[in-house]
Amino acid sequence: MTTHIYEALMAYTARTMALDEVAGLLGWDQETMMPEAGAAQRAEHAAAVEEARHARESSAQISDWLAALEGQEMDPVAARNIALIRRRHERATRLPADLSIELARKTTAAQRKWAAAREANDFKAFAPVLEDLITLKRREAECLRHDEATLYDVLLDTYEADATSAELTPVFDRLRVALAELRAEVEASAGAVPRLTGHFPKAAQLDFAHRLADTFGYDMTAGRIDTAVHPFSSGSGADVRITTRVDEADPAGNIFATIHEMGHAVYEQNIDAAARLTPVGSNASMGVHESQSRLFENQIGRSRAFAEWLYPAMRDRFGDFGVDSPQALYAALNRVETGFIRTEADEVHYNLHILLRYDLERDLIDGRLEVADLEGEWNRRFERDFGQTVPTAAEGVLQDVHWSVGYFGCFPTYTLGNIYAAELFDRMRGEISGIDDHIARGDLVPILAWLKAEIHTPGALRPPSELIAGAIGRAPTEAALIDYLGAKFRSLYPG
Amino acid sequence: MTTHIYEALMAYTARTMALDEVAGLLGWDQETMMPEAGAAQRAEHAAAVEEARHARESSAQISDWLAALEGQEMDPVAARNIALIRRRHERATRLPADLSIELARKTTAAQRKWAAAREANDFKAFAPVLEDLITLKRREAECLRHDEATLYDVLLDTYEADATSAELTPVFDRLRVALAELRAEVEASAGAVPRLTGHFPKAAQLDFAHRLADTFGYDMTAGRIDTAVHPFSSGSGADVRITTRVDEADPAGNIFATIHEMGHAVYEQNIDAAARLTPVGSNASMGVHESQSRLFENQIGRSRAFAEWLYPAMRDRFGDFGVDSPQALYAALNRVETGFIRTEADEVHYNLHILLRYDLERDLIDGRLEVADLEGEWNRRFERDFGQTVPTAAEGVLQDVHWSVGYFGCFPTYTLGNIYAAELFDRMRGEISGIDDHIARGDLVPILAWLKAEIHTPGALRPPSELIAGAIGRAPTEAALIDYLGAKFRSLYPG
Repeated sequence: MTTHIYEALMAYTARTMALDEVAGLLGWDQETMMPEAGAAQRAEHAAAVEEARHARESSAQISDWLAALEGQEMDPVAARNIALIRRRHERATRLPADLSIELARKTTAAQRKWAAAREANDFKAFAPVLEDLITLKRREAECLRHDEATLYDVLLDTYEADATSAELTPVFDRLRVALAELRAEVEASAGAVPRLTGHFPKAAQLDFAHRLADTFGYDMTAGRIDTAVHPFSSGSGADVRITTRVDEADPAGNIFATIHEMGHAVYEQNIDAAARLTPVGSNASMGVHESQSRLFENQIGRSRAFAEWLYPAMRDRFGDFGVDSPQALYAALNRVETGFIRTEADEVHYNLHILLRYDLERDLIDGRLEVADLEGEWNRRFERDFGQTVPTAAEGVLQDVHWSVGYFGCFPTYTLGNIYAAELFDRMRGEISGIDDHIARGDLVPILAWLKAEIHTPGALRPPSELIAGAIGRAPTEAALIDYLGAKFRSLYPG
Repeated sequence: MTTHIYEALMAYTARTMALDEVAGLLGWDQETMMPEAGAAQRAEHAAAVEEARHARESSAQISDWLAALEGQEMDPVAARNIALIRRRHERATRLPADLSIELARKTTAAQRKWAAAREANDFKAFAPVLEDLITLKRREAECLRHDEATLYDVLLDTYEADATSAELTPVFDRLRVALAELRAEVEASAGAVPRLTGHFPKAAQLDFAHRLADTFGYDMTAGRIDTAVHPFSSGSGADVRITTRVDEADPAGNIFATIHEMGHAVYEQNIDAAARLTPVGSNASMGVHESQSRLFENQIGRSRAFAEWLYPAMRDRFGDFGVDSPQALYAALNRVETGFIRTEADEVHYNLHILLRYDLERDLIDGRLEVADLEGEWNRRFERDFGQTVPTAAEGVLQDVHWSVGYFGCFPTYTLGNIYAAELFDRMRGEISGIDDHIARGDLVPILAWLKAEIHTPGALRPPSELIAGAIGRAPTEAALIDYLGAKFRSLYPG
């Protein structure tokens, strides 16, 4: 009997998850293929799928099934599936329909107003909209909260199932101190770094992106590469698509966007196919996802060893590009420069950008910071952490889309991903002998096999922090990331 | 009160129709963008959307709303919307769920088996599958039937709402006689027709396709052109996409596939936007749809007048292609050749292919022809109508996908489309002065305006035969098509 109920629940859930994937495809199409006039229609399509999806997810039928399974003995996979279904079902039922609709409506409008305010460099024009959104997000968190968690932690939980700010904050605080020190040292260094020069035609860059797919194990029979303004990856299982960007004056943007997105895509391609359309057959969390893209991009892609493979491969594809050795390419690809924009930041600065946002959004949601004071606080913090004065709101508090679409609690998963990536790569280094020689040859097979076994295949079988702890043999800390960045950049920028 | 119920019904219907469009997009993506390994997943996506769609369409809520609106005074648009919703709802509720599922499952398998049988030139391998499908389609027709209609007419009604075989058959019989005569005359003619020669690069052909879009009023801000093995159009309103094919040895395939699909696409783009996501805001029928694509392709695209525009435009794009005048291009594009394959047929032969299929599928569904006798009957009929012996099953009874996917009743809408196209063009000729001069300049504006007003904008406000009768001022007959083909091909192939 229990088996039948479990099977019915899983069959029902599979259909709901298929609708999630349909929603994902609509989003991919919108960013890559949709004619420009199609936006309003696409909103109707997305709303229709979301209505069907939400009706399923909040169905009373699920409550009945879950009640019947309560306290029954289940194998670990079934138990985990049930726990994850319960989590989604509770979220869907706790959130009143009118609040969901209002959030969807308000975030669509807010994104438009944010874009206009950024264009006009006018935070005050966006402030009332943001205030409204924060009120709604606090209401959302109040509806979802089922324990003593802070409102921010309830939102954070949406993105990283078992993270709390009580655990993250001290880790991030220690990381900030170390990064500020490193930044100061690099800035004081006299090292001169070459730049890539030349013209890199779009077709050649896209061709090179396909060569990278081969190297990084991205199965193109189950994937595709298109261009988009903001690169992203999308899909799961046997249909995982990435987008990349192309700047004909600089191939690095294309190469690292491609490698980054392939980190996400290979993860999705490698999740156990037998668990498809079950909660266990999904990715573990946003932090774990980001660890895979960052590990591909930084620990491998921007490493000294990989420059040995990348330099001749790029010469082969692009001819002379003004850099005369793997070492010089390595230095050029790891140039450190203080900038205002997060998405353009080097590895030394990237997490400082995130930590600033994390502190501010936590204070906004938990009521310690007023929207009226946000711009001033951003600029004060930026000056303290980066040593420079923010020139415009577009280069400061208005630069990211996240808050305008209600993504409070998402930023910390980026730094968490970097912390996980450093830990995983450290562990691999101990387990894969001659790892740098493999990377220098462009032979990522042993690395991919390790990641597949330890991280990809298990999917969401375990909570994210347990998954990482299982792979590295202990709880992760910020130390591996600090050591990795310190060793790399102190050698590139000697004192 | 009635107004509220009607509004609720229409809001509900709009969401269902948005899911129809989502299903359409999934299909487009499958044929154009999907990675090859993604097929199995796509089937899950399509099934999930179909389940949601069917649940809405058969919902008891609709029955209640329809019952409450029964006998109420409504304006003509509302009355028509209600009638169309009732029709769809009745279909959805009359068909038992297990039959729908079995049909979906069997047609998927049958299509695979058909492809294998065609590959192997072995009708016997496909015969039992086809027999099975016919049994199911007869059951489907029995479930849907609500009057004295034949089973075939019930299926035909799916594609052409108010057509009956009692009306079509005599029309088609007269058409066959006229076409057979014309065919014999052309065959006896000594006229030699030039052929296009040269190499036509894919990029140049696709570029030319975009130039055609401009000429034929296909709004590319609400459309896009991709390539696919079997060209099709897809979508509605502000997002209508077409696909075309490319043969680098012959640009005519690309040009006429593009023009044909643009006929479908421009129709969908021009339906009254104010009626979007209502039944009235949909296309009138398959026959009307095909009339628009055929009119674009043949009455305009393959006309003597259009060759005046097309010849210099092609020279401009492709250079010399072995044909030295508009008249010679016109002759080359209208070469008549007896072939076995419907999709490659010229205008003289095309409808003969359809009429053969119409007669055979009607006899199969209505029980006058056994599957065991189908191949022999096909070959006998082909020899009679085309004067040639069918060499292989792949070039005969196995050539079309339609029956393998259960599309019985679809073929006649193709000839109906040709009949409507000839009638509409005749009428236009009387109303638009100097129509050939306009066409010769590539100025299709007055034609597009006429079609938009008479056919496109009204959508499904009236039943298809009424729509056409309204546009031409009387009931359509086969005479206009016979006259058009006779005049054109007797002049190209003089006796």
